[in-house]
Amino acid sequence: METVTARPALLALDWGTSSLRAFLMDGRGTVVDQRASAHGIQNLPAPGVAGFEQAFAALCGDWLAGRQDSLPVVAGGMVGSAQGWREAPYASCPADAQRLAEQAVTVDSALGVRILVAPGVLYDPPPGTADGVPDVIRGEEIQIAGALADHPAWAARSCMAMPGTHSKWVAIRDGRIESFATYMTGELFAVLTTHSILGRLMPEGAAADAAAADLAFARGVQAARESRPGDLSHQIFATRTLGLTRRLPPELLKDYLSGLLIGHELVSGTARMQEALDGDIPLLLIGEGALCRRYGRAMEILGLKPAAEIGNTAPRGLFQFAIAAGLIPPAKETPNG
Amino acid sequence: METVTARPALLALDWGTSSLRAFLMDGRGTVVDQRASAHGIQNLPAPGVAGFEQAFAALCGDWLAGRQDSLPVVAGGMVGSAQGWREAPYASCPADAQRLAEQAVTVDSALGVRILVAPGVLYDPPPGTADGVPDVIRGEEIQIAGALADHPAWAARSCMAMPGTHSKWVAIRDGRIESFATYMTGELFAVLTTHSILGRLMPEGAAADAAAADLAFARGVQAARESRPGDLSHQIFATRTLGLTRRLPPELLKDYLSGLLIGHELVSGTARMQEALDGDIPLLLIGEGALCRRYGRAMEILGLKPAAEIGNTAPRGLFQFAIAAGLIPPAKETPNG
Repeated sequence: METVTARPALLALDWGTSSLRAFLMDGRGTVVDQRASAHGIQNLPAPGVAGFEQAFAALCGDWLAGRQDSLPVVAGGMVGSAQGWREAPYASCPADAQRLAEQAVTVDSALGVRILVAPGVLYDPPPGTADGVPDVIRGEEIQIAGALADHPAWAARSCMAMPGTHSKWVAIRDGRIESFATYMTGELFAVLTTHSILGRLMPEGAAADAAAADLAFARGVQAARESRPGDLSHQIFATRTLGLTRRLPPELLKDYLSGLLIGHELVSGTARMQEALDGDIPLLLIGEGALCRRYGRAMEILGLKPAAEIGNTAPRGLFQFAIAAGLIPPAKETPNG
Repeated sequence: METVTARPALLALDWGTSSLRAFLMDGRGTVVDQRASAHGIQNLPAPGVAGFEQAFAALCGDWLAGRQDSLPVVAGGMVGSAQGWREAPYASCPADAQRLAEQAVTVDSALGVRILVAPGVLYDPPPGTADGVPDVIRGEEIQIAGALADHPAWAARSCMAMPGTHSKWVAIRDGRIESFATYMTGELFAVLTTHSILGRLMPEGAAADAAAADLAFARGVQAARESRPGDLSHQIFATRTLGLTRRLPPELLKDYLSGLLIGHELVSGTARMQEALDGDIPLLLIGEGALCRRYGRAMEILGLKPAAEIGNTAPRGLFQFAIAAGLIPPAKETPNG
């Protein structure tokens, strides 16, 4: 660990449903210190505003002491939702850091600082679009701003696939979020294994052989590739019948279901993005490493290839948001420019 | 209620996961008395065999008193599963009442009667079939035997759609079950509304205007019609975004989700059956009235039309099963022949 010499220029909060992450950054956007707590907006130490104040003070109070006038504070994620500290209503597509800054809201904290809270983004498809249903993101727009700042070559036209509880597929054009679609893949996997009959044949904590697990996963992905409209609620039942008929050992049923659900998301997501962006476009995987590798493996099985896998770009995105809001000057050099 | 004059010829048990239904039938297959209890195989009054004995004695003990030698007893449904009283391993397709009888197992009850337990049916697709995964039914094969006995005109070639927690789509040819597919539509609806984020915006017990509910349901069905492979885990998220953006009032979100899931099942199920049976075939809806009407409405929106809606044909099916097993002579006349 090297000693922090740069004077901190920004305190950035990535405040989601289940965790609060805080980043102290210098004027070039480099993280000089970071901390995290489990005080996500659904797990605050007290109800209401007091809960937000306490969580913020517990994590960042000492960082701010004596710096209230010199250290701008920004926040993104569910902290700006209707259940957050203060609601920052959704910005519309096309959206970039500039638009997020224009539609941000402020919260005056008891610690003596004003926090700039980023809005989420609403995609409202044009009338006549196939399913014609709006979609929303909150938190991912910040990660995207970070990814585009780090990798400007992808700003012209690219697709960002962001696996998770609610995966997001985001079409980027001219440096802005043009459209996106949410897939409830992670949550569907969780509720089916925890609360449906499909979980009954799955043993708790059974460790599967890695090669066998990969084969079962691949079999699920291939079933997704062969699927036709409406097939999913039939295909997931295979997780039960393959177990009942002992064609797959119990410890591999989860891998099959995972491959099936991720495969369905990839089949639909890539088709949707190709349509949104008129043809083949670089696909970037953004998110937690193990999950990105799982998606990368499924893509390989489907004959697809991500242009890159990227880790957490939220700090860099919050930095760009702060620049767009005029809280700090533009960085003179970008880390991975 | 007319007095029971006919001498009972058969005691038939429809014993599922959540209920036990008993039917006393005459020699023509007419139900002369019936009873039900909540002692499904997952809700027995005691663990193990004792639970089955107690549930059976509580519901049927007095019916059997003094008739142990003259009243054959048959049972179908989950009572024959691996978690049942005794396992009756799956019969293979093509399957009819005769094959069910050939592969039935017996249980000797403490009440002094031998119960003939019907097997379920396994469909094992030929190698090279698209998804190539086996499927199973247990209980529906009995209902189908009943439906075909009541309506012999449909035996040559038809499709039976049986909506429920696990809906079954069954291809019938030459009086036998040729193939089938399970759709977890009902369970998917239940786990999503109860355990996922989609349920959070749905008010408890809110009554919706019937016409508005039908419109929301139709909108879900139409979204299913427009869907492409893999779209479901994206489309279900609309249940949240339509609520968040107030495009649908909270009390209608369940109807939208119901239409979406039933629509997906219908799109896939009808395509699958047309392929299995080489073209357009009469589609019969079998099951509980309100649910069949919901499916019938979705079919209407999709421009489909069921040839008939049929109620509970389990008693009639158990009667056919008993005839096939040689426990009772063939009926001289059929009720709706």
